[in-house]
Amino acid sequence: MEVTYKKCNTVDVLVVGAGPAGLMGAYALAKAGVCVRIIEKRATRVAVGHADGIQPRTMEVLKSYGLLDRVMKEGNELRTAAFYNPNPNKPGEIQLSERAPFFKPNMPGLRYDFGVTLHQGAIEQIFLDGMQDMDLQVDRSTIPIAIEVTIKNVDSSETEVVHAKYVVGADGAHSWIRRNLQIPVDESSTPYVWGVVDLVPETDFPDFRNWAGIRSDSGSCLIIPRERDMIRIYVQLEGQNAIDATKEAADGSKVKMGPEWILDVARKTLYPFTVVPKSFEWSSIYTIAQGVAFRYSVHDRVFIAGDACHTHSPKAGQGMNASINDTYNLAWKLVWVLRGWSNRTLLKTYEFERRQYALDLISFDKKLAKLISEKTHNESNVDGAMRTAYMSMIQKSTEFSSGIGVHYLPSDIVNIKNQGLASGIVIGKRMPPGTVVRLLDFCPIHIHDLLPSDTRFKIFVFAGNASSSAQLMRLQQLAAKIDTLRSLLGLDIVPGNSSQSGLDVLTILSTKLELALFNELPLMLRSHWSKVYVDHVDTNIHGTDHIQVYQNCDVEVDGTLVVVRPDGYVGAIATIDDFEHIKHYFSSFLETLK
Amino acid sequence: MEVTYKKCNTVDVLVVGAGPAGLMGAYALAKAGVCVRIIEKRATRVAVGHADGIQPRTMEVLKSYGLLDRVMKEGNELRTAAFYNPNPNKPGEIQLSERAPFFKPNMPGLRYDFGVTLHQGAIEQIFLDGMQDMDLQVDRSTIPIAIEVTIKNVDSSETEVVHAKYVVGADGAHSWIRRNLQIPVDESSTPYVWGVVDLVPETDFPDFRNWAGIRSDSGSCLIIPRERDMIRIYVQLEGQNAIDATKEAADGSKVKMGPEWILDVARKTLYPFTVVPKSFEWSSIYTIAQGVAFRYSVHDRVFIAGDACHTHSPKAGQGMNASINDTYNLAWKLVWVLRGWSNRTLLKTYEFERRQYALDLISFDKKLAKLISEKTHNESNVDGAMRTAYMSMIQKSTEFSSGIGVHYLPSDIVNIKNQGLASGIVIGKRMPPGTVVRLLDFCPIHIHDLLPSDTRFKIFVFAGNASSSAQLMRLQQLAAKIDTLRSLLGLDIVPGNSSQSGLDVLTILSTKLELALFNELPLMLRSHWSKVYVDHVDTNIHGTDHIQVYQNCDVEVDGTLVVVRPDGYVGAIATIDDFEHIKHYFSSFLETLK
Repeated sequence: MEVTYKKCNTVDVLVVGAGPAGLMGAYALAKAGVCVRIIEKRATRVAVGHADGIQPRTMEVLKSYGLLDRVMKEGNELRTAAFYNPNPNKPGEIQLSERAPFFKPNMPGLRYDFGVTLHQGAIEQIFLDGMQDMDLQVDRSTIPIAIEVTIKNVDSSETEVVHAKYVVGADGAHSWIRRNLQIPVDESSTPYVWGVVDLVPETDFPDFRNWAGIRSDSGSCLIIPRERDMIRIYVQLEGQNAIDATKEAADGSKVKMGPEWILDVARKTLYPFTVVPKSFEWSSIYTIAQGVAFRYSVHDRVFIAGDACHTHSPKAGQGMNASINDTYNLAWKLVWVLRGWSNRTLLKTYEFERRQYALDLISFDKKLAKLISEKTHNESNVDGAMRTAYMSMIQKSTEFSSGIGVHYLPSDIVNIKNQGLASGIVIGKRMPPGTVVRLLDFCPIHIHDLLPSDTRFKIFVFAGNASSSAQLMRLQQLAAKIDTLRSLLGLDIVPGNSSQSGLDVLTILSTKLELALFNELPLMLRSHWSKVYVDHVDTNIHGTDHIQVYQNCDVEVDGTLVVVRPDGYVGAIATIDDFEHIKHYFSSFLETLK
Repeated sequence: MEVTYKKCNTVDVLVVGAGPAGLMGAYALAKAGVCVRIIEKRATRVAVGHADGIQPRTMEVLKSYGLLDRVMKEGNELRTAAFYNPNPNKPGEIQLSERAPFFKPNMPGLRYDFGVTLHQGAIEQIFLDGMQDMDLQVDRSTIPIAIEVTIKNVDSSETEVVHAKYVVGADGAHSWIRRNLQIPVDESSTPYVWGVVDLVPETDFPDFRNWAGIRSDSGSCLIIPRERDMIRIYVQLEGQNAIDATKEAADGSKVKMGPEWILDVARKTLYPFTVVPKSFEWSSIYTIAQGVAFRYSVHDRVFIAGDACHTHSPKAGQGMNASINDTYNLAWKLVWVLRGWSNRTLLKTYEFERRQYALDLISFDKKLAKLISEKTHNESNVDGAMRTAYMSMIQKSTEFSSGIGVHYLPSDIVNIKNQGLASGIVIGKRMPPGTVVRLLDFCPIHIHDLLPSDTRFKIFVFAGNASSSAQLMRLQQLAAKIDTLRSLLGLDIVPGNSSQSGLDVLTILSTKLELALFNELPLMLRSHWSKVYVDHVDTNIHGTDHIQVYQNCDVEVDGTLVVVRPDGYVGAIATIDDFEHIKHYFSSFLETLK
């Protein structure tokens, strides 16, 4: 296909780095109509290896952009963990101890009760294809050489100055942007040395299509199934192996410790099971370092994101998720500032929210890395076997490892007043999952599907029982106030046209389906036929397995407003009579309401 | 994009007509690696109007090609029917009588318990895009002029002779192929005249996003919601209107009865509700003719399909479904004959199976058209209101209207012996839905997703409890016999490479998940890690709402073989010791087994 992409040297945002963090950012900004340029040092995208785990919350984010179907089609579902430990009756052999699900099936609060593995390059390609549709391409073999910002093609040595209002440094663990800005990292290395190899196996190991944690007398390894019949094996290197590997990793040579060598170490751990490689795809040796950058931004003009901000072990499968969610958090804020809607203080919440998350991640990772690597008995690991402590930690931390537990602390965009009006809808966390019935066509619709990543704030009007005339009167008053806010904000409400609109209003009635009357609602609450929902099912039409949202989330039935941010996190709650509180919420970061 | 498509004048199959039937056929054949050419009289595809209903079985077929996601994304879900009748208290006005689901929610036997509306052109575009990926395009403005076959570009008047082994005439109700072959149609016209208009409405009619059947003192109309906020209104024309419309339709003029005029007629029926058009998209006037062609083929070399075979009213939303399923039925048979695997008698089953279906469709349609059009009281319509008879007919005929009830009669490829071994898996009907758990990664998988339209026969080995050594022995014997069949057939089993393979073997154990041992099964039953399933759930991992397939389908747990045809219909059943019966089944149409 002919490249029609035109490079601009005056842009709104320059993204440095085209890994998952950079691509998520550039994709999200371009989709919102922002003029973006994205540059990348490497000449081609990552074809094999690297990160591969996609957690449930990241699946929700990808779904909100319409990208999840492809991930599901190309990736591998991961549901079950299996634990192997030394067989007490057969020295030198391992045996299955137990199996358990990563996430409890149909666990309330989870929309997806499983994870997906798919290599980083495939995820990158999905963003790249989406960007291509918006006529945006990555300038490859291109690096920043000064923060003014001048960029250079490393092949041709031609230089070019790019004028950008904002810069996002998503340029990896050795971030040039971070070093140039002299942002220190609070990093500590661990004593653990690991090898990793991706291969297609011929094997009699029973759990090679489940996540498998194996501890034998000769060491530890992890097996993680991947797309296209591949598996990844992580193997802990000990004794002389660890010393050799550390040396080899340090001087960059890869003479001895190639994929065959790493697999040989794993084979000892896996005995009596055998693994014969049909093909190798990738391998690497690494030591685990753990740390978080001290700052995420300089003057709220240059930001860092992804591995540039945080390094940790790959075992928990969190890396790509953390990176994607960094720029997902940043992108809509940049959009709101660039459109002139919000003042620049909004951008401060990026570091505030994402750095705390990274600190939590490192603390989680430290416990996990230690558990996997250590063999000694201790109080959380009484029998020295892998399962006990690991599973108990995983099960305790489902909220964290799935990503749904991310809880942003109070700020301009997280106002925790009125939490009691809907105790199941936690302010600062993402909107919980649930299903409501669309009034006009009786279709059950997932609440998350009402929250596309279109850069709009959504106001859910939990309107209660709108068949009473008193309640209708209150809704009329509310509608007038929302209308005024819309005028004040200078925002337009055009369904499906995200670049023209900053607000969406969705109504959820507690009225019985057969009593709910669309046409009696104020126009503002039914700007389109698809905007009105009922939290009630006709069992004749919908079956009986519906969980009611009002009840499940403990929503005040008298009438409650819930403001959801463009990234799906709950920002504020008020009664329908207290729209002043909602105005107050918006006024803390909106230019036009100051 | 540059057109790289190269026209061949020597092809395996020439498809005449690029409507839903022709495109389904060309797409299916091209996907199987067959050399196809497809020509179409019209210069461009249908952009608006025409057929729009997609029934559950057609959704299954589209899913089996990976095309359903896009249909769901672009189309409109249709779940609920609403019925309006004269308001006895307010003469001249209508009122809601009742609402009901088209298909009972979670009805056993239905994978999809709703329909989708999406205009024919959008469906065609999905096939066209899929064909483009396979470097196949429609030759437009091109008609056949002799059955030798010479084709001509109607714009340039250039002619070209195409040599084809087979011809599929999917060239519509006025089929040139059908007339050229002098195939008569047993057609009768009805007294009913209807107008149809597609528009985006501004309306206070409460059910404009549901299917709505309305009978008022001034006439009948139907409202069907469509994609992109559109609705379709069918309105029955009576008295002078009907006379005028018939005349106007006959002389082809469209002066008087445009969209505004049709809408005006509907407005009288809809009173007191109002409809203001925001935009019109399409309109038409028609009388209903009903009939089926006497033959579907000449010498099993030239076939007709779709509207060329059957005409009926559009009200039941069956037309596009019938057409797509005609060529879906034909395509794999042509593939098997063209590959030299099957003898040509296989092609006789196309007319045998699809003509009977068309006769059933016409009989269904006659009852339905009468019910909708007639106002008089009769025994099935005691109160003269629309709901009673209509809903009772719809509900009685869910199997038919959803498409899942299609039941092909005994033939070379439908052998009804041994039905008793699995009474819930009806020989001649499509494989029923159900979920099994993939042994090696514990993922719940829908049985239909094991039946992609890859032109392969699938043998389901319901292997029973494989943890007993006696049963394992029987499975070893079975495996050896399947292996022999494979050699005899000259078929290769290459996963994911459909053009090289005619057979797939899938094993479903009744063994408890934790006792099922993959590696002990014969290699033939586990040619790939994804081929072995368990009909048992670990409630800890999978929750509790699983319906067991053995029990639900009454499958003999001692060991049962089920042969499913490439189009998803069940062909034969045997015990695992009676592989002779399966060989006999294949020998009736396979060249190599004769």
